[in-house]
Amino acid sequence: MVAAEQSMTGNEIRARSRAAEFTQQTSGLASGYVQCNIVILPARDAAHFESFCKLNPKPCPLLAVSERPGDASLPKLGADIDIRTDVPQYRIWHDGMLTEQRHDIVDLWQDDWVAFALGCSFSFEEALIAAGIEIRNISEGVNVPMYRTNIDCKSAGPFGGKMVVSMRPMPAADAIEAIQICSRYPSVHGAPIHLGDPRTIGIHDLKHPDFGDPVTVQDDDVPLFWACGVTPQVALESARLPIAVTHEPGHMLVTDLKNSELAEKP
Amino acid sequence: MVAAEQSMTGNEIRARSRAAEFTQQTSGLASGYVQCNIVILPARDAAHFESFCKLNPKPCPLLAVSERPGDASLPKLGADIDIRTDVPQYRIWHDGMLTEQRHDIVDLWQDDWVAFALGCSFSFEEALIAAGIEIRNISEGVNVPMYRTNIDCKSAGPFGGKMVVSMRPMPAADAIEAIQICSRYPSVHGAPIHLGDPRTIGIHDLKHPDFGDPVTVQDDDVPLFWACGVTPQVALESARLPIAVTHEPGHMLVTDLKNSELAEKP
Repeated sequence: MVAAEQSMTGNEIRARSRAAEFTQQTSGLASGYVQCNIVILPARDAAHFESFCKLNPKPCPLLAVSERPGDASLPKLGADIDIRTDVPQYRIWHDGMLTEQRHDIVDLWQDDWVAFALGCSFSFEEALIAAGIEIRNISEGVNVPMYRTNIDCKSAGPFGGKMVVSMRPMPAADAIEAIQICSRYPSVHGAPIHLGDPRTIGIHDLKHPDFGDPVTVQDDDVPLFWACGVTPQVALESARLPIAVTHEPGHMLVTDLKNSELAEKP
Repeated sequence: MVAAEQSMTGNEIRARSRAAEFTQQTSGLASGYVQCNIVILPARDAAHFESFCKLNPKPCPLLAVSERPGDASLPKLGADIDIRTDVPQYRIWHDGMLTEQRHDIVDLWQDDWVAFALGCSFSFEEALIAAGIEIRNISEGVNVPMYRTNIDCKSAGPFGGKMVVSMRPMPAADAIEAIQICSRYPSVHGAPIHLGDPRTIGIHDLKHPDFGDPVTVQDDDVPLFWACGVTPQVALESARLPIAVTHEPGHMLVTDLKNSELAEKP
C-alpha cells in the first residue's frame, strides 16, 4: 500500500483526496511530484499576502495563485485541480485561531476566495537524497526541526514577523554540495540562509525547536538553515484575519509538476 | 604606476616581463585577466604530472599544457606566449631543492620540456570581491593562509602527498554566496572543499598556517577552505625530480583570457 502510494502520480493522490479516500500526510508519497503549501484568503487580504510572498521569496516561494477570486482551479500546477477538495486535510482559522480541521472546504468556499500555492522543502530534500546526502530528519523518522529566528520578514499590510527556518545537520562536504544543489531550486526555498553557529540568527538551543522535532547533531556536522514554509503560517496567525484556510501541516497539495522541472538549468 | 599596472592587459604584462622590465608579483595587476601557476618538466615526468593534475582537478585545475614537448607557446592562453620569458620570475629546482631564481629560462630550456598552466585563486577572489564579499587576506594586505591537510591526493608516478588548502574566513551568509559563486569556476579550484571545524581535515591551529600569513577570524566567521595551487608544488618537491621549473609564488603568468570567460554559464 505504501509502495503503491509512493509510486502514485499527483493526479492520483488528488483524485483519492477528492473522493475522501486519502486523508494522510503526503511526505514521501508520489515521489518526483512537486508538493505545495496552501493558503486560502478572501480577496481583501489576498493582495497584501501576495506582496508579503513576493517581498520574502525565500520563506514564501510563490508557485501559483488563483487566476481570479473565486476560481478554485490552479492550472499552472495541474489541469484538473479543485483547491476545495484536492488537499488531503485542511485547517480553518478564525481571528488567528485554529478552529477546525476538515477533508474539504466545498461548503465554506466563497466567490471572492484566493488560493496561494507555495513551494515546499520536500522538493529539495528529494534532490539532496538523489545526490547521496543523508537528511537527518528522514533517517531518524521525525519531522524536520524548525526555529523562530531574529530575522525580520519584510511586512505587507497585516503580514510580517520573524522568519522561521528549518535545520538539517550534515558533514561539511555534504553541506557544500547541498548549497550547490539547492541554489538550483529557488522556487522551493533555494540555498540555505545560514550555516554554523545558530546564535548568529537568534537560535539558542538546537535541541529545542519551536516546531517539529529535534534531530541528532554529530560532532563533525555543520547545521544548515533554510528559510521555511512555516514562516507564512506564523505571519498568518499573527495577522488574526477573520477567516483563513491552510493545508494541515504535512498534508500537501500534490501537483502534476515534477521536481526536476523546478531545477534551473545548469 | 600601480594604477597603470592594474589596468594593463595580460599581453602588456607579458611583454614587459619578456623585456625584463617587470619582475614583480602580479596579485591585483591586469585586473580581469586570468593568471596561472606554471610547472615545467622534462617529457619523461610530464605524463605522470598531467595524470596527477587530472586525478586531482580541485587543487590542480589544468588550464593548458604544451601542445608538444619543446614547444614554448601556449596558444590556448594567449597568441604570442613564450613560456621561457613571459613569467615575471622563475624558480629552478634540482632533486626537489630550490636552487635558483631567475627572470627567464631561455638558456635552460630543453627541446623535450613541457609546460603546464594551472588555474589560480586570483580569478575567484575577483569574482567574490565583485559580489561585495570581503576577502580577509586582501583587506589585511597579507598572503592568504595555507595549510597542509590530512586529505590524500590521488597519486600518479612520483607525484602524490597531502592536499594543501587556502582559508578565507567570512560571515555565514557570505560563505553561502561564495560557495554559489565559486561553483561556477571549476577551472580555478571551484567550490570550497571544507568549511567550519578545521580539525576535520587535520588542521589544528588556524593561527599557524604552513604557508602564507595568518588572518583575523572573527566570532561570527565561518572558515572556508579551498583546494590550493600549492598542492602541486608540494607534490613536485617530494617527487625530487632531477630538474623542474615553476613560477615564483605570486609571480604568475598573466594570460589573454578573461576571468569572466572561465565562469560556467548559469
